Amino acid sequence: MATDFTESNAADAVIASFADTPDPRLRNVLTSLVRHLHDFVRDVELTSAEWEKAIEFLTAVGHMCDDKRQEFILLSDVLGVSMLVETLNARGPEAVTASTVLGPFHVVESPARRLGDSIDLLGDGPPCVVEGRVVSLDGTPLPGAQLDVWQANDQGFYDVQQPDVQPLGNGRGLFTADSEGRFRFRTVLPSHYPIPTDGPVGQLLNETNRHPYRPAHIHIIVSADGHAPVVTHVFVADSPYIESDAVFAVKRSLIHEFREVSDPDEAERYGVTAPFRLANVDLVLEPES
Amino acid sequence: MATDFTESNAADAVIASFADTPDPRLRNVLTSLVRHLHDFVRDVELTSAEWEKAIEFLTAVGHMCDDKRQEFILLSDVLGVSMLVETLNARGPEAVTASTVLGPFHVVESPARRLGDSIDLLGDGPPCVVEGRVVSLDGTPLPGAQLDVWQANDQGFYDVQQPDVQPLGNGRGLFTADSEGRFRFRTVLPSHYPIPTDGPVGQLLNETNRHPYRPAHIHIIVSADGHAPVVTHVFVADSPYIESDAVFAVKRSLIHEFREVSDPDEAERYGVTAPFRLANVDLVLEPES
Repeated sequence: MATDFTESNAADAVIASFADTPDPRLRNVLTSLVRHLHDFVRDVELTSAEWEKAIEFLTAVGHMCDDKRQEFILLSDVLGVSMLVETLNARGPEAVTASTVLGPFHVVESPARRLGDSIDLLGDGPPCVVEGRVVSLDGTPLPGAQLDVWQANDQGFYDVQQPDVQPLGNGRGLFTADSEGRFRFRTVLPSHYPIPTDGPVGQLLNETNRHPYRPAHIHIIVSADGHAPVVTHVFVADSPYIESDAVFAVKRSLIHEFREVSDPDEAERYGVTAPFRLANVDLVLEPES
Repeated sequence: MATDFTESNAADAVIASFADTPDPRLRNVLTSLVRHLHDFVRDVELTSAEWEKAIEFLTAVGHMCDDKRQEFILLSDVLGVSMLVETLNARGPEAVTASTVLGPFHVVESPARRLGDSIDLLGDGPPCVVEGRVVSLDGTPLPGAQLDVWQANDQGFYDVQQPDVQPLGNGRGLFTADSEGRFRFRTVLPSHYPIPTDGPVGQLLNETNRHPYRPAHIHIIVSADGHAPVVTHVFVADSPYIESDAVFAVKRSLIHEFREVSDPDEAERYGVTAPFRLANVDLVLEPES
């Protein structure tokens, strides 16, 4: 009996075509994908013109991708999919530091620095100090924990975006916590910044009246022996867009006060000039099972 | 109060970000897309590695697209989305000739030919005659109806795929029905053929043990004054893969017997040599409202 393709049996027919997929996980993923994709097309009764526009959009996204730009990740980001995947794959006790997106500006690897060093190689931004402790879930300090830190400058640019202005490694540092799990580094207060808007994803944001901004944040990957590493952000509490991150990466537990300190003595103790901003950030890792 | 991104509120947060979209239709489509996309990711608990693989796959699909190749349409085809959109947008009375996918090999426009002409310019394939009538929904003949016909040859290739073998226009013809809505043309019996498998979509079919073949068919776009045009196929009933078209374009009503005729007199009447194949195809159009 020949196939008869109809609205109601379409998804079943496509799912059946994947029945001989050797990898059962791939078969399950494709089955769910087809079910949800067809449901979407049917629910909105997608027109042929809209389908053509979707094909053109996806093609433009693909053509925007090269070894320096990943527009599909950007699309995944602004649709909240990247953060959803991140969240699904980092379920753990609530007390553990929450994970968030890696973003496109991580480099392998950041320059090793000593505790207290400044990652602001130009020394021209508003001074800022971040300090804290890395501990295990039960509160035990984690001596020798590693912190891979990177951030945009006070104009909202990463070093790799401004090769003529910033030396490579500016805003980056690899720190090792002391015998009590303590860390400290000096930097500039990072600025909020827009995700790239010169591609099809920027056009989508524009057509939907969405702004492209990410609130100010410092990236940290925290790792320690015998513990699951965490990819996270330290968000600046009083940053613009803290409530409407274009890529949905904000979790409340990751927002930190960057307290303004005007006391010159306190500034001197930290090796900066007053006024400066001071954030205290405790990072909690889960023992690996 | 700052946003807190969680598994359960993720889709709502993304949907809310599209709330100010000026075009209400775009807002509705994006709302449904986000809902279904997040449901998919949550249902399968997509891993970070799988997400990366998906990003790589979509990027490869985009990079395969140029002015001669549309890999995203191919992806839409093998997921049954193209046919679903086609079906949703061509709802009509059951008696009307069903529509199916246009495919990538239509050219504007086919060479005009006279009724009874052969579209087989090389004369080296198994002879075949297609004849029939174009009528309105109530059975009234539609004199002057136009039939834009194109097909692969008996090796499964369209003219544009074999520029060194086939003259341009081989397998193509624009016919005008006579005063009784009748049409007739000679051709070769088309062969089944594979969709392109040298890209990421071919790799997907390979990984899922799906064959890439389309059953033998002749494309026709039928149009007549005051009637909705129909983009359709005439499928060859005894073709391999008639039950498992790689792009799901088969509807039962579009399958036609290509009867083998061995009578030399009948062959002579049609201007071919015996044995030949003969298909009778009536095409029914719906009056435009």
